[in-house]
Amino acid sequence: MRILGVDPGLTRCGIGVIDTAPGRQVSLVEAGVVRTPADLAPHLRLLAVAEGLEEWMARHRPGAIAVERVFAQANVRSVTGTAQVAGIAMLAAAQARLPLGLHTPSEVKAAVTGDGRAEKAQVQEMVRRILRLESAPKPADAADAVALAICHSWRAGVAGASPSDRAVVAGQHGGAGSAPEAPGMTAAQRAWAAAERSARRAGAVAEQR
Amino acid sequence: MRILGVDPGLTRCGIGVIDTAPGRQVSLVEAGVVRTPADLAPHLRLLAVAEGLEEWMARHRPGAIAVERVFAQANVRSVTGTAQVAGIAMLAAAQARLPLGLHTPSEVKAAVTGDGRAEKAQVQEMVRRILRLESAPKPADAADAVALAICHSWRAGVAGASPSDRAVVAGQHGGAGSAPEAPGMTAAQRAWAAAERSARRAGAVAEQR
Repeated sequence: MRILGVDPGLTRCGIGVIDTAPGRQVSLVEAGVVRTPADLAPHLRLLAVAEGLEEWMARHRPGAIAVERVFAQANVRSVTGTAQVAGIAMLAAAQARLPLGLHTPSEVKAAVTGDGRAEKAQVQEMVRRILRLESAPKPADAADAVALAICHSWRAGVAGASPSDRAVVAGQHGGAGSAPEAPGMTAAQRAWAAAERSARRAGAVAEQR
Repeated sequence: MRILGVDPGLTRCGIGVIDTAPGRQVSLVEAGVVRTPADLAPHLRLLAVAEGLEEWMARHRPGAIAVERVFAQANVRSVTGTAQVAGIAMLAAAQARLPLGLHTPSEVKAAVTGDGRAEKAQVQEMVRRILRLESAPKPADAADAVALAICHSWRAGVAGASPSDRAVVAGQHGGAGSAPEAPGMTAAQRAWAAAERSARRAGAVAEQR
C-alpha cells in the first residue's frame, strides 16, 4: 500500500510518499515540498498547491492520502491559509476517490516517537530511523509529511499489519484508555499505544472547545 | 458583467449571482445554497460543495467571483470548515481563470448599508431594496452571497460604473482615510465611502493580529 502524506502550508506544503509492507515496515518513496511565492494572489497560491499535489499524485498513484488535521486555535495569523491548503488536499483525495485520514499533530508525534508531545527534532530523528535513512528528509515540512504517512499506515492498520499490530489498531478505535496491550507487542509499540491513548484524550478536549 | 458571490459554509454555502449595468445598477440572476449533510466525511462534504459550485458556475458563466474573506478569530469551532470552503471557492475561480475578489464581512455591510457594523436584517433589507425584490433571497446565506456580489461590483468598479462611481472606487484603493469625495456623489455613496474607509481601517487591524 502506498500512502501520500500532506503537511499543509501555503508557503511550503510538505509531501511525503511511503510504501508499507508486512510487520509495520515502511519505506520512503519520495519526500519534498510544493512552494508558492508570498507575493502571488491567495487563490493563485491555492491553485499552485493543487496543481503540485495533482502532479505528485499522478506520479506516485497512492492508495490513500493522509492530511494533518488543522485546528483553528493553533496560530491565528496563518491558520486560514493552512486550513485552506488542507481543504484542497482533502478535496483532491475525494476527487480521486481515495480513502483519507486526518491526524492531529499529537497523533503523528505519538505514532512515530511514542510521545504525543515530542519535539520536532525527535520526530525527524524517528522518521530517519524508521525509514533507515542516513539523514531525515529536508526541509522539515517534508519530514512532517512523511511522519503523517507513517502515522496513517500504523493507525489505519493498512495492508501488511501483523496480528499484534491489528490488536493495537483495534484498541485505538475503542473508548479512551481501553486499548488492550496485545501479547507480543514491543516496548516501542506499548509506549506508542499508551501515548496514542493520551493524545486521543487531548484531541477530544481540543475538538470540544 | 455577471458576478457570482460565495458565502462560504460547510452546512450551507450561500451562492448569489447578479448582473451589473451602468450607474451601479444590479439585478438578481439567482440565489440559493449548496447544503452538505453533517454526517458525511469532511472531505466528501468539500467535494459536494466543489461540485455544487461548479454546477452554478457552468450554468451562469460568471465573469468574476467574490468570496468572503475568512478570519480565523471569528469562530474557533467552525472556522476551519468555513476557511476550507472559502479556499475551494477561491481555487474554483483560479481554475476557471476568473478574477477573484475577497471582501470582509464589514466591507460587505458597508457597501450595501453604508454601515460596516450593520445587523444581518439590515443587510438583507438593503439587498432586497437594491435588487427591487418583494422579499430578500432566502435563506440568509443566499442573501449574504448576493450582498457579497453587490459589494464586489461596486468596489471593483466593474463594467458600467459611471465616472463618479469610478472616483469612489479609486479612492477606496488609496491610503486609509484618503478617499476623495467626488463631486456628484449621492448621499448614499458618500455614506458608503465613509463607512468603507472605517471598515478598511478595522480590517487592517484584524489582519495585523
